[in-house]
Amino acid sequence: MPNNPTHAQKALLRFFTMGSFEHARKVSAKLHPAEIAELFIQFRRAEQLKFLELILSGQKAGAILSELPEDLTKDLLEEISDDRLAKMIARISPDDAVDLLGYLQEGRINQILEQLSPKERWELERLLLYEEDTAGGIMTTEYIALNHSILIEDAIKQLREKYHTEELSYIYVIDDLNNLIGILPLRQLIFTKTNQILHDVMIPDPIRVQTDTHQKEVARLVSTYDLLAIPVVTADNKLVGVVTVDDIMDVLEEEATADIYHLANLDTDEHVSTPVPRSAGLRIPWLLINLATAILAALTVSLFEKTISQYVALAVMMPIIAGMGGNAGTQSLTVIVRGLALGELDFSTGLPAILKELALGLISGLVNGLVMGLIAYIWYRNFGLAVIMLIAMIANLIIAGAFGAIVPLFLKRFRLDPALGSSIFVTTATDVGGFFVFLGLATLFLHFLIK
Amino acid sequence: MPNNPTHAQKALLRFFTMGSFEHARKVSAKLHPAEIAELFIQFRRAEQLKFLELILSGQKAGAILSELPEDLTKDLLEEISDDRLAKMIARISPDDAVDLLGYLQEGRINQILEQLSPKERWELERLLLYEEDTAGGIMTTEYIALNHSILIEDAIKQLREKYHTEELSYIYVIDDLNNLIGILPLRQLIFTKTNQILHDVMIPDPIRVQTDTHQKEVARLVSTYDLLAIPVVTADNKLVGVVTVDDIMDVLEEEATADIYHLANLDTDEHVSTPVPRSAGLRIPWLLINLATAILAALTVSLFEKTISQYVALAVMMPIIAGMGGNAGTQSLTVIVRGLALGELDFSTGLPAILKELALGLISGLVNGLVMGLIAYIWYRNFGLAVIMLIAMIANLIIAGAFGAIVPLFLKRFRLDPALGSSIFVTTATDVGGFFVFLGLATLFLHFLIK
Repeated sequence: MPNNPTHAQKALLRFFTMGSFEHARKVSAKLHPAEIAELFIQFRRAEQLKFLELILSGQKAGAILSELPEDLTKDLLEEISDDRLAKMIARISPDDAVDLLGYLQEGRINQILEQLSPKERWELERLLLYEEDTAGGIMTTEYIALNHSILIEDAIKQLREKYHTEELSYIYVIDDLNNLIGILPLRQLIFTKTNQILHDVMIPDPIRVQTDTHQKEVARLVSTYDLLAIPVVTADNKLVGVVTVDDIMDVLEEEATADIYHLANLDTDEHVSTPVPRSAGLRIPWLLINLATAILAALTVSLFEKTISQYVALAVMMPIIAGMGGNAGTQSLTVIVRGLALGELDFSTGLPAILKELALGLISGLVNGLVMGLIAYIWYRNFGLAVIMLIAMIANLIIAGAFGAIVPLFLKRFRLDPALGSSIFVTTATDVGGFFVFLGLATLFLHFLIK
Repeated sequence: MPNNPTHAQKALLRFFTMGSFEHARKVSAKLHPAEIAELFIQFRRAEQLKFLELILSGQKAGAILSELPEDLTKDLLEEISDDRLAKMIARISPDDAVDLLGYLQEGRINQILEQLSPKERWELERLLLYEEDTAGGIMTTEYIALNHSILIEDAIKQLREKYHTEELSYIYVIDDLNNLIGILPLRQLIFTKTNQILHDVMIPDPIRVQTDTHQKEVARLVSTYDLLAIPVVTADNKLVGVVTVDDIMDVLEEEATADIYHLANLDTDEHVSTPVPRSAGLRIPWLLINLATAILAALTVSLFEKTISQYVALAVMMPIIAGMGGNAGTQSLTVIVRGLALGELDFSTGLPAILKELALGLISGLVNGLVMGLIAYIWYRNFGLAVIMLIAMIANLIIAGAFGAIVPLFLKRFRLDPALGSSIFVTTATDVGGFFVFLGLATLFLHFLIK
């Protein structure tokens, strides 16, 4: 059971476990797909399959399945015959249908499409062409477009006749060639005299995106301009779909997860519920890359084996310099990556940000270096060691600031994801740089360290 | 200039730089506050102050200021006299007003409140009582509530007369005592027979939140149930406000930023645009905490100074074990923290997640340990070293999985932020644990290492 089940959820569960499927079906018609999905994930596999039978015949099957964790949805789709799946696909909304088809193998997609009517098939095939993370991939094709020349009163009449079950916030106004020329917020219909034509009351030249606009940019526009939906057009301005704000909320969470995951060197396909073998397959490649960079750092240390063997306190102190560089570098990197994601800076305005991180590296290097120098002096009673700690700390925290700022800005410049892999570059720089500066200084001034 | 300025933005800029303030004011009335804010941040300080004069008299001043970076808004508010600020505060929407007052010192808030009418003052004082990150703190008080007993046609009449400028998606239906008893999506007004009363067509018992509900929970509800707005009630169900989906998008970004920042040990008050001294003040405390944990790791190493001095290759190899633990721990921690944020798991369902991370630690420890063992053997031709690397890698990656999963789950259990400070616990565990296991094993089996 979810933490705070609603009355309807409890009723559905009771009818389902009692085997009163007819009642259960009636109750589930009143629930939001997300509420049904909440119950679904708590079941054991055998119950899930029985529950699947229950919902497959309903209107909400597609919406419920798309609320479930990806891996579970994939498993469940395996259990449904092509025949039944095709029937369900035909019934649910085209954008839910495309999402579900996206979970299947190429071959199975074709088998299912073949069972649909030519019109349904054509529509889905068209939608399947769009990349998943573009406006075309997340848009719905269920929207209201009306010709600019019709009267408000006729528009209201059409709405009442044709569109009474739809979720809608705007009416999209098109010309005779299906070009998007304006929008009309639904509330305007209530406040406008009914003897005017749409053209005279619409908001002309509305904010729009193209089918291939990245979902991040779509989300930025919707969020910046506080829209409830945004129209999607082809390159020549033909209206083909609408992205609604509820999908934008999903995009915002998805993109935030991508940034958080990429900073931690995780694949975005992984979830809490991903089975161990698949998680292992997704994480181990990243760990092996990290291993390679750790070996690079170890090679740096090995250059100074002789120095360390002459003054072994260096082995005790060196992880402090490298570790602090890693931490400071992660701070700089995170501020820049998040700033890029939120549109607070880009490559062209990056220079002040780089200079700021360098300044911060200097200041925090000085503070932490002085503290650590003092501690090193108290610990080993060695003034030379204290001075080397101070200098190495400042140097490595400046390295940290420089790489933390420059790496993501450059990745962005070359149209790569500024979060993806950047932490590997930064920690390699602070490990190799930190060990090299610290042990290098110690080697140069070894006669000050050991008297 | 922003990257892709609109025609209106260009026109505003042209009129402003020409000094035609009257024209500039007219154009700015047509722009979204976010579009004006985009221009604002590109100006130099002297121009910003001139521009501030331009917008202060308009309706959008509050909305524009709240779109600017926090530090800039604070600076600009300093430049406005109490008298003019009070006039502006009285004119803008109460929730924008409260946001702006939030930037001021206690004393100045009171001075400004004193200049308002008793009614305005009472309203703002009431809103100021709510915590910033609760439903009460983010709600707007501009919504439409109508008595359940009125006819649809009268409702439409009231809307036309009183509320024609408002953004609205739902009508909130209240009883005679201002208890929230239902909602009616605006589109229903268009599709419903006008001779019914609201009570008969409303959706009863709508999803709602209380004034002290945390904004994370508000966002979860709006996002899960695809709402355009959610009503806010007092503990005894009196309707007092509404949180709209555009504010929820801001909450989603804010909460994602908080998680990303906390994982990197950053304070959420920091932004790309934060001046260096303030950034330094926010970051250095975290770095000093990290320094303390790094010293703990160094103390662990110092226990084994004698061992290292006998076989200095250990100093070369030990950062690999510690570093790999840090990386694997960050992976585990990030999956769990994000899963908690997205509601995919909680403390009570945490055990499978912990077991999964332990299993992943074992598997990735085995893979990386075998690779590293082989490399260590080739490097130093020392079979004992290779075996110790293998065992220490497995042990430290299990430690990483355990702490990465358990630390955030426990923080959550005690109602603390699972991201805040958790990476410090985890890397301390993998540093101290990694060094201790590796150097401890090396000490125990030193006679295998040096023959």
